[in-house]
Amino acid sequence: MIIKKTDKKLQEILDRGDIMEGEYLQTVLDIIANVRKNGDEALAEYTLKFDRYDIKKSGIEISKDEMKAAWDNLPERLKTALENAKKNVVQFHEKQLEATWMYEKSKGTFLGQKVTALESVGVYVPGGKAVYPSSVLMNVLPAKVAGVDEIVMVTPATGGQVNPVVLAAAYLAGVDRGFKVGGAQAVAALAYGTASIPKVCKITGPGNIYVALAKKMVFGKVDIDMIAGPSEVLIVADSTADPDYVAADMLSQAEHDELASAIVVTDSMELAKEIENSVYAQLAELPKKEIAAKSLERFGAIIVTDNLEEAADIVNDIAVEHLELCVEHPMEFMLKIRNAGAIFLGQNTPEPVGDYFAGPNHVLPTGGTAKFFSPLGTYDFQKKSSIIYYSKEQLMADMDDIRVLAESEELIAHRNSVIIRED
Amino acid sequence: MIIKKTDKKLQEILDRGDIMEGEYLQTVLDIIANVRKNGDEALAEYTLKFDRYDIKKSGIEISKDEMKAAWDNLPERLKTALENAKKNVVQFHEKQLEATWMYEKSKGTFLGQKVTALESVGVYVPGGKAVYPSSVLMNVLPAKVAGVDEIVMVTPATGGQVNPVVLAAAYLAGVDRGFKVGGAQAVAALAYGTASIPKVCKITGPGNIYVALAKKMVFGKVDIDMIAGPSEVLIVADSTADPDYVAADMLSQAEHDELASAIVVTDSMELAKEIENSVYAQLAELPKKEIAAKSLERFGAIIVTDNLEEAADIVNDIAVEHLELCVEHPMEFMLKIRNAGAIFLGQNTPEPVGDYFAGPNHVLPTGGTAKFFSPLGTYDFQKKSSIIYYSKEQLMADMDDIRVLAESEELIAHRNSVIIRED
Repeated sequence: MIIKKTDKKLQEILDRGDIMEGEYLQTVLDIIANVRKNGDEALAEYTLKFDRYDIKKSGIEISKDEMKAAWDNLPERLKTALENAKKNVVQFHEKQLEATWMYEKSKGTFLGQKVTALESVGVYVPGGKAVYPSSVLMNVLPAKVAGVDEIVMVTPATGGQVNPVVLAAAYLAGVDRGFKVGGAQAVAALAYGTASIPKVCKITGPGNIYVALAKKMVFGKVDIDMIAGPSEVLIVADSTADPDYVAADMLSQAEHDELASAIVVTDSMELAKEIENSVYAQLAELPKKEIAAKSLERFGAIIVTDNLEEAADIVNDIAVEHLELCVEHPMEFMLKIRNAGAIFLGQNTPEPVGDYFAGPNHVLPTGGTAKFFSPLGTYDFQKKSSIIYYSKEQLMADMDDIRVLAESEELIAHRNSVIIRED
Repeated sequence: MIIKKTDKKLQEILDRGDIMEGEYLQTVLDIIANVRKNGDEALAEYTLKFDRYDIKKSGIEISKDEMKAAWDNLPERLKTALENAKKNVVQFHEKQLEATWMYEKSKGTFLGQKVTALESVGVYVPGGKAVYPSSVLMNVLPAKVAGVDEIVMVTPATGGQVNPVVLAAAYLAGVDRGFKVGGAQAVAALAYGTASIPKVCKITGPGNIYVALAKKMVFGKVDIDMIAGPSEVLIVADSTADPDYVAADMLSQAEHDELASAIVVTDSMELAKEIENSVYAQLAELPKKEIAAKSLERFGAIIVTDNLEEAADIVNDIAVEHLELCVEHPMEFMLKIRNAGAIFLGQNTPEPVGDYFAGPNHVLPTGGTAKFFSPLGTYDFQKKSSIIYYSKEQLMADMDDIRVLAESEELIAHRNSVIIRED
């Protein structure tokens, strides 16, 4: 697992999310066109085919009562944990709330920015084996905090069944309506609306390649969040790090799926060896050891550098989703970081603290996209309108500049709209 | 031009931007694949074909000297107007700057958000007849204010020529590198990089359907701004409005292109008739009267409502790009507005004030997308990383909740990474 930063394995790790979208594109376009044209009929057809569930017979909507019942039936201990997580997530996301502002540019002339919540949001929750109630909280709560009026959840329900913990989390987070439909067809329904499913302003949430491509293709008709790729952690560790902690954190990433990646960057060859040994020792005890082993083999790496400066350069180059700084002076090291989804500082901040509990969002940019994307946040569910309020005096003062600029673009009616206001 | 809000013409106006992307998609995918595979060779081939310009012979890059020479040769009056516009745009966009923050959640436990600038941005500047130096300022200056290291401009150069006012504006705004390449091929080059053109983090700027689709298809590989549709204004006018002003403002939108739309919503039938008369009187004098007349005929409308409350509902439904409030109490009316790109308040704020000069960005969401998109802003060129710094005490306090949540998702290595830190 120990490699040099020039090893070609590193590039293979970084490229692992590069999926050949082309193969799936026509299928997704056909599904979108069908849903747009035939609405619920198309949804019924796909849901019967892919989820073996007949929405015509058994219904498409998940009632509020079903969500509440799922919540009521949850073990008390899990309820408390979810409630505590909710409290933390809400507290952090309230700090991200933006507010309208305005300032007086000159006497009687005001400029500003009006901030309003999106009216409606659709949240995609994947079905299948890996069921993450924490994802429901992380997608829904920021929209709630922003003040979104209606939050719609869609999720594939194999045989009509939705995981009860997901339903409970939806209830706790405040989902307004839920629908048993998944895949590209669910995305299309949220983008265009059907008789059953309301058209929303924005679609968030992870999904498979069909879901990701469908989101991309409806972008512009609605807003979407990021295109999610496989998950990853990069841990910077110096000689003060505990190798068992670092190894445990690598494994917590590797158990996600075979495409997950766990990388350590350290300036200590001794630590590198200790981490490697500890990884294999801990791996043997894991229920998901087969998945984790495959992930580690293909996309796990321990890179030994000459010094920590070099480590910072590698970190900024890779722009990883989860960055752990298990170093003696994590605050100082953070100052050097430009590109990362979330930064976990110090020996006592393993990534799962952020996945579940601390408060910041666990929906983070993957595959190097932290160079330009941000974590999902309250700002994703607010939008802005510019405000311009000119006084007569300011308009007259600026008139000649505007005239010159309009004439340079040969837009004479633009010019006229200003000069007509001259007395 | 006077219609009721139930008239089907209104829906035709709102649907005018619905372009059948499908026809163009394969062409765009082929261009992207070709540029990705063959780099500059592909760029040379397309540029010769579409722009009749041989970049192999005459070069692809626009030198800083060329930009500076264009600036030096500009008439002094235009230089001053551009400099004043720049000053206003920079001032407004500085108010949008976001900063890193952190707070102590409990003793020794810190949460926050680190804000950093994107490293590089590509700005697409259309060629052709309609040349807008103001667009160069509006796309480049927010990136500059955000602190982007490198700003790259691409623009199609028919026969090798780039409009000198565009080059001058690029110099004034601070473009770092310019390239004579346009279309989907320019977008592909910015997304994947070629030997000549650097890969960037985000691509902004308007373009034709090929450019818009190319941006959509490279989304995820890079970030992009909005998908721009045809431009539009909606003017709310009550009986206090000056019909000549309103008519002039309709025309300043209609002269843009035949797909542009100008709508008035008023509670006064008398005013509606006066506006209509004034529009045709002013239209006759315009250099671009043919374009404006076609735009008005197909996509111009004056909607008469029973009262201003109803007008506010229509405004929020349409979610227009430019909203003018020519009413007696524009500030009060603004409080009712949820969806609009930019709001121009009062009789003395015609839209061109915002197009050129006031300071807020003129790149705005069109075609109803103001329900979820915001104006282009400094925030488009900054990104965030979450910060989580847990103390040992807080980790121990939260350990049991995290354990319960991890177990509910059957992620045992997640759980382990926390409990291994217990003494």
